[in-house]
Amino acid sequence: MRNIGMTVSYDGTAYSGFQRQPDQDTVQGRIEAAITKLTSDQITISASGRTDAGVHARGQVFNFHTTSAIPIERWVLAMNSRLPNDIVVQEAWEAPLDFHARYSAKVKTYRYTILAERNPDLFRRLYEFHHPRPLDIEAMRRGIAYLEGEHDFTSFTSPKSTKQSNVRTIFRSWVEVEHAGSDEAGRGRIHLFLKGNGFLYNMVRIIAGTMMWVGEGKLRPEDIPAIMKTHHRDAAGPMAVAHGLLLWSVEYDGEERI
Amino acid sequence: MRNIGMTVSYDGTAYSGFQRQPDQDTVQGRIEAAITKLTSDQITISASGRTDAGVHARGQVFNFHTTSAIPIERWVLAMNSRLPNDIVVQEAWEAPLDFHARYSAKVKTYRYTILAERNPDLFRRLYEFHHPRPLDIEAMRRGIAYLEGEHDFTSFTSPKSTKQSNVRTIFRSWVEVEHAGSDEAGRGRIHLFLKGNGFLYNMVRIIAGTMMWVGEGKLRPEDIPAIMKTHHRDAAGPMAVAHGLLLWSVEYDGEERI
Repeated sequence: MRNIGMTVSYDGTAYSGFQRQPDQDTVQGRIEAAITKLTSDQITISASGRTDAGVHARGQVFNFHTTSAIPIERWVLAMNSRLPNDIVVQEAWEAPLDFHARYSAKVKTYRYTILAERNPDLFRRLYEFHHPRPLDIEAMRRGIAYLEGEHDFTSFTSPKSTKQSNVRTIFRSWVEVEHAGSDEAGRGRIHLFLKGNGFLYNMVRIIAGTMMWVGEGKLRPEDIPAIMKTHHRDAAGPMAVAHGLLLWSVEYDGEERI
Repeated sequence: MRNIGMTVSYDGTAYSGFQRQPDQDTVQGRIEAAITKLTSDQITISASGRTDAGVHARGQVFNFHTTSAIPIERWVLAMNSRLPNDIVVQEAWEAPLDFHARYSAKVKTYRYTILAERNPDLFRRLYEFHHPRPLDIEAMRRGIAYLEGEHDFTSFTSPKSTKQSNVRTIFRSWVEVEHAGSDEAGRGRIHLFLKGNGFLYNMVRIIAGTMMWVGEGKLRPEDIPAIMKTHHRDAAGPMAVAHGLLLWSVEYDGEERI
């Protein structure tokens, strides 16, 4: 028996999310179908986590057990020739038998992208949220920094979340801005990055929506600690749309798998 | 009567090309429908030229005559709220009554993009051609430079072209390379630019396919003048796929309209 790990990128636009569901086109379903075509085995993969409908991944990681003898260096091409164009395997490796993409994951990084320009960027419209008005980027930088550390993130998750504990640690949260045409203040392509040991349901999207309120001046950066302390979803801002969200990378024992 | 000029970007993926055709979804059809919704007039626009199915535009230009009194600064938003997300009006202006987007166009620039990396870039897959092997970029630079000047481009057009003359002037033809991950030679995102006074049917795509042959070593850069002299399509390389092509800009009296 072998345990094979893979890193996969996907464009979530066409799928009903990552997780396999009956009668739905999902990323997991497509990946498992490709492995079955290759190995004639019915297998189930374990991913680092699910992503919602419309959410994308740069470096999702999954693993599966197989008795297939296909050499490890053949897997990437073999999978990609059996996958649709919007799912691309980037890397495959022999993992220790006890490696589990979810339980072994130590660090995950998400990116949420906002284009603060008058006109949308046509060629990235499926991968970023268009915010026509300028945003106070410095306020967003200060606001997102308050999330670093160990906190109860109940205010930033769906009330439907059923996790036993909503305490998570954000190792680093930061903003990167790409110039996107205009020189005006508050303009550009704004990437919000969150690197943590785990994320609750809808957590990154609610944080992104809250940071947009900070950028619009509806909240002050200094309001973030108080919002966390309420432990109540109503205190935070709105949930940002799915398509601006990208699972950036997953790390195992200090190594980013992308 | 007013003559309104507009610059428009579009993602050609979903359309049967620019030009209106019965029972086909086209960019022109969508633009004219949006203008009709706005003005209740049945109008026909004139564009700088058509683009084929799957070809994109960053700065296509068109004009139309109307008696509408809508102030010029309202048009961009008014059009974009009536157009699908993959067609975006960037600018609108009052043009002189004799301005014609095609006949007044002095310079057009096209870009063809090739990703020479092992794996495709998922998020740009609809806007570039994926070439998994490395390319000799210096040879491509030297090859494309031979196209500059006034030449008969019969070798680089479809035999179906019905133009009276195949003589065109290329003012500048050049290569730009973006780093796209790997440091290996011959890797990167390779943009071929062609700036000229006019282009024949399929001309940029046949030039791009020929430059890929140069990059693969199937042709030498020095072969390009001889290929032009044959005046025969068979002498050139293959036609590159449509989706790597982008109408970059159109210039009128020395001014780029984007």
